[in-house]
Amino acid sequence: MSPAPLDASKLTITKTTTPKELLPKEKLVFGKSFTDHILEVEWTKEKGWGVPTITPYHNLSLNPATSCLHYSFELFEGMKAYRDSEGKIRTFRGDKNMERMNRSAKRAALPTFDGEEFMKLIDKFLTVEERFVPTGYGYSLYLRPTLIGTNVGLGVSAPDHALLYLIASPVGPYFSAGFKPVSLEATDYAVRAWPKGVGAYKLGANYVSCIEPQMQAATRGHSQNLWLFGEEGYITEVGAMNVFFAFVNEDGTKELVTPPLDGMILPGVTRDSTLELARAKLDPKEWSVNERKLTIHEVKERADKGELLEAFGTGTAAIVSPIDNIEFNGKNIKADCNRETFVVK
Amino acid sequence: MSPAPLDASKLTITKTTTPKELLPKEKLVFGKSFTDHILEVEWTKEKGWGVPTITPYHNLSLNPATSCLHYSFELFEGMKAYRDSEGKIRTFRGDKNMERMNRSAKRAALPTFDGEEFMKLIDKFLTVEERFVPTGYGYSLYLRPTLIGTNVGLGVSAPDHALLYLIASPVGPYFSAGFKPVSLEATDYAVRAWPKGVGAYKLGANYVSCIEPQMQAATRGHSQNLWLFGEEGYITEVGAMNVFFAFVNEDGTKELVTPPLDGMILPGVTRDSTLELARAKLDPKEWSVNERKLTIHEVKERADKGELLEAFGTGTAAIVSPIDNIEFNGKNIKADCNRETFVVK
Repeated sequence: MSPAPLDASKLTITKTTTPKELLPKEKLVFGKSFTDHILEVEWTKEKGWGVPTITPYHNLSLNPATSCLHYSFELFEGMKAYRDSEGKIRTFRGDKNMERMNRSAKRAALPTFDGEEFMKLIDKFLTVEERFVPTGYGYSLYLRPTLIGTNVGLGVSAPDHALLYLIASPVGPYFSAGFKPVSLEATDYAVRAWPKGVGAYKLGANYVSCIEPQMQAATRGHSQNLWLFGEEGYITEVGAMNVFFAFVNEDGTKELVTPPLDGMILPGVTRDSTLELARAKLDPKEWSVNERKLTIHEVKERADKGELLEAFGTGTAAIVSPIDNIEFNGKNIKADCNRETFVVK
Repeated sequence: MSPAPLDASKLTITKTTTPKELLPKEKLVFGKSFTDHILEVEWTKEKGWGVPTITPYHNLSLNPATSCLHYSFELFEGMKAYRDSEGKIRTFRGDKNMERMNRSAKRAALPTFDGEEFMKLIDKFLTVEERFVPTGYGYSLYLRPTLIGTNVGLGVSAPDHALLYLIASPVGPYFSAGFKPVSLEATDYAVRAWPKGVGAYKLGANYVSCIEPQMQAATRGHSQNLWLFGEEGYITEVGAMNVFFAFVNEDGTKELVTPPLDGMILPGVTRDSTLELARAKLDPKEWSVNERKLTIHEVKERADKGELLEAFGTGTAAIVSPIDNIEFNGKNIKADCNRETFVVK
């Protein structure tokens, strides 16, 4: 018998008998409180995908020799479910997350799955957890699809057991400062990703190495690192966000720039949406919208000349976060977040 | 009250009431069967290191939002306990592992600890598990100290909860082929590590990205990848092993070469021992022992000229593994593993 594909129609649901009290919105800390349930699907190399279950939120029981605890067989996605103006629950471009999750899975030697089937399961999960989707500008239910290797053993090889699961957390702003501009440190003493590496995949492995530099940057008053690459100081991304810069040229035309998908940055869904919206909505006589390489030196020079209009980060968790300062080599590059730079057609 | 340091004297031991039957040596698969107990110490940012415990081997109960499952807050060491000629149990250079584990912990924003105290705990653990230390050439008890972030939450920040634990597995040869020469693929289509990255730390994050290329190499008959770096094709390491080459020069003198500790390779304990032994035992009139950069092209050219005497990998799990073939760009570089290259003083 060939291994079974992921099949949403097999879902079984066991609802909690002890539903949680909803937290008031002002008490929501990003990713700290969770809904009542967890969605899980086990996979084995031999049998393929098993029966999807929604059960009361519970701890995972893992052998201490499980591969995800030793060799980082783990990847995830970040998605959000919102209430629309009629109160209906909508997920934002989940198909993009499913595509990316499968790309990550392939690179991490973990099993792939039918993204449409998993989206069906997520929709069922949202029906069960409906009351946890908050209302209000900037509030949403953050969804965390996760895939981990669950084979037991210390030999380093592709997992023959895995667990796909989904948990969800009602959230407001990602940064603890709230919906306020963030300050970044342009970092070249550590490197997040490199050519032919895994920086373009949403693997846990891309995060652990960024925390110690993030702590260093925090001591200097910055909430995140702007990761540079190479002697040229190419700008890549912010770890939790992709990054955009708006410049005005000498002739008065303007440019919105973000680094290209060169394998070293995460192909963000919000990045993609931002580019699509900018190309659709900004006046092409006034604006050019470019995915191109740019260096921290270009940003510094143009800021010095008064040509840097705005800078912002994009990400599912961070949404669109204005950047008002970037420190590089002890000097601050200031961006003004109070302009009305983007006037749509 | 300041956070408590790791204190071995606080250890509590609860022995199993259902001891496992020992497997016969020929049934030992690397890292597949474990001893009766697990050593654990919890850490919190507030209280520091808690009471170390040795209890019956058991699963870990982890909230599905635990940081080690999302952001790869996980690192480990590999050590071995052997029986000496008098049957006494000895660990091999554990102080080196403790140093490296603390370096890894610092880089991964996980807590550091007093390595001497942890070694005392490991010695206690070995007293409890004595019957699992096998006898015989190439057999040992593989020890796996592990440190994971156990804080619950999806914000990406330094863990304020962690778990240090030790499990152990009686082992024979690492490679399933047994104590036989291995064939490598020299790989340049994927890159393991980068300057200013984390390739020199024993983080789980360094392993996940190597498996998909390892599977590709396996389809071509190779058991491991020899990771190249840069357009020059610099040789770095093998993921599970450091790598050494022995050359004979035109004037008949010989050279033992291994790549230098440039931040891109793991500073292996067996690598270090091999260098120490080679420097102490090989005749310096005949041999030079060098940590220097070398490229796959140099190895190929010198093999073509008959100047490649031997190649081997070193690692705690792999011990010293002869390499009899390296495929690069579809061509095979053969090494002869049956010479008596290394005649000690």
